[in-house]
Amino acid sequence: MKVVKLSPAGGLNVEVCLTPALLPLYEIENSIVVVIDIFRASSSICYGIHNGAEAIIPVSKVEECAAYHGKGFLLAAERDGEVVAGFDFGNSPFAYEPEKVAGKTVVLTTTNGTHAIQLSRSARQIAIGSFLNLSALSEWLIDKRENVLLVCAGWKNKFNLEDTVFAGAVVSNLRRAGYVADDSSIAAEDLYTLAAPDLNGYLKKSSHSGRLELLGIQADIDFCLRADVTTAIPVLSEDRLIKLTV
Amino acid sequence: MKVVKLSPAGGLNVEVCLTPALLPLYEIENSIVVVIDIFRASSSICYGIHNGAEAIIPVSKVEECAAYHGKGFLLAAERDGEVVAGFDFGNSPFAYEPEKVAGKTVVLTTTNGTHAIQLSRSARQIAIGSFLNLSALSEWLIDKRENVLLVCAGWKNKFNLEDTVFAGAVVSNLRRAGYVADDSSIAAEDLYTLAAPDLNGYLKKSSHSGRLELLGIQADIDFCLRADVTTAIPVLSEDRLIKLTV
Repeated sequence: MKVVKLSPAGGLNVEVCLTPALLPLYEIENSIVVVIDIFRASSSICYGIHNGAEAIIPVSKVEECAAYHGKGFLLAAERDGEVVAGFDFGNSPFAYEPEKVAGKTVVLTTTNGTHAIQLSRSARQIAIGSFLNLSALSEWLIDKRENVLLVCAGWKNKFNLEDTVFAGAVVSNLRRAGYVADDSSIAAEDLYTLAAPDLNGYLKKSSHSGRLELLGIQADIDFCLRADVTTAIPVLSEDRLIKLTV
Repeated sequence: MKVVKLSPAGGLNVEVCLTPALLPLYEIENSIVVVIDIFRASSSICYGIHNGAEAIIPVSKVEECAAYHGKGFLLAAERDGEVVAGFDFGNSPFAYEPEKVAGKTVVLTTTNGTHAIQLSRSARQIAIGSFLNLSALSEWLIDKRENVLLVCAGWKNKFNLEDTVFAGAVVSNLRRAGYVADDSSIAAEDLYTLAAPDLNGYLKKSSHSGRLELLGIQADIDFCLRADVTTAIPVLSEDRLIKLTV
């Protein structure tokens, strides 16, 4: 990971919302929200925007995605590790290569991620975070001088390890810039510090690593854990995620 | 801490519910629930039962507690670190010494703890956990051969560090006995492992350690972090917590 540029951030808070079910407890409207769904939605979104996708529209259900059929969109939907019949690709970040997505708008089915975005709509701004844009995201957040709420998409509203560990990586950068952390941020940072020397090995302990293994997506997972592949930051504009321009 | 007696527990699960707000996501009725509110309700309850209190009735509000006035109960209520006028004592475990509580029933005001107990009512059994009874509790749970759900009372429905770290201590014992852990249990155990060499120092990082310091309850905190002071396990029977008899 790059060394993140630091500037003092007196009086600013960083909080980690460990699952979307806890979002009603936070003052969303006073924060920039970063939505995190490491395996694999937020990683694929960052990579797609990096590779020139014009926009990515997150939707909850395969049926919603299908409604965009025949209108010039690329449609991404996956169930149980297989691309749904009639769709252009699944949830693998490798589907989001430039030759496929450049200049296109992708409609992406992602249950946990879309849920988190919908619940965060009152935020000052919503961005998408993943290891792929970790340093660029952290620097941008620090430059904005706003309170930051890191929202883990989790798994069916429950806590998951990979989203929390990534949140901890962002917390680590923000605390070095002077942000004040809540208890869940402290815990996330400590888990990240523990996991950082071997992210892949650490996350193998997670309860759904078995499920992910069965899906045969180890290459996806390795990719999703690579730091700083891009400086692109997807941000929500109306119903779609576009590349932040500064 | 004592070495906990181990017996194999194939197919059993241990889960950590990080805040009462997440309880609807768990199959409470198939589990023994352990309610955890380290600073200071669950520690005081364990110590009071250890010292011969006949029962402890947890209630949410000072007014509910006051309704028991003049009926032979000891009343415990505290606001902002002070015993409420007209009540017998506050939330300090040191109030629960034998000469005060032996043979008596205490009505205890504890917002987060009572909330967690109320939401767990459909459990097979509800017990109270704290560092004070860590090993005895772990051994009893392992002997029961049931799924275990560790419920952190948290702080106003948010995650807190001390309850999670204690949950991690129990997870550590249960995993060595073969229980399968969910992601929040894995995280809790890792945080406990990190914190264990200096629990007090570790928890000083927590966001409300400042608040607790202002209350002048450092002696309480030191006491609440002492492991295995008692083998007493408070369990819920109707509306009150009594000593488990095996």
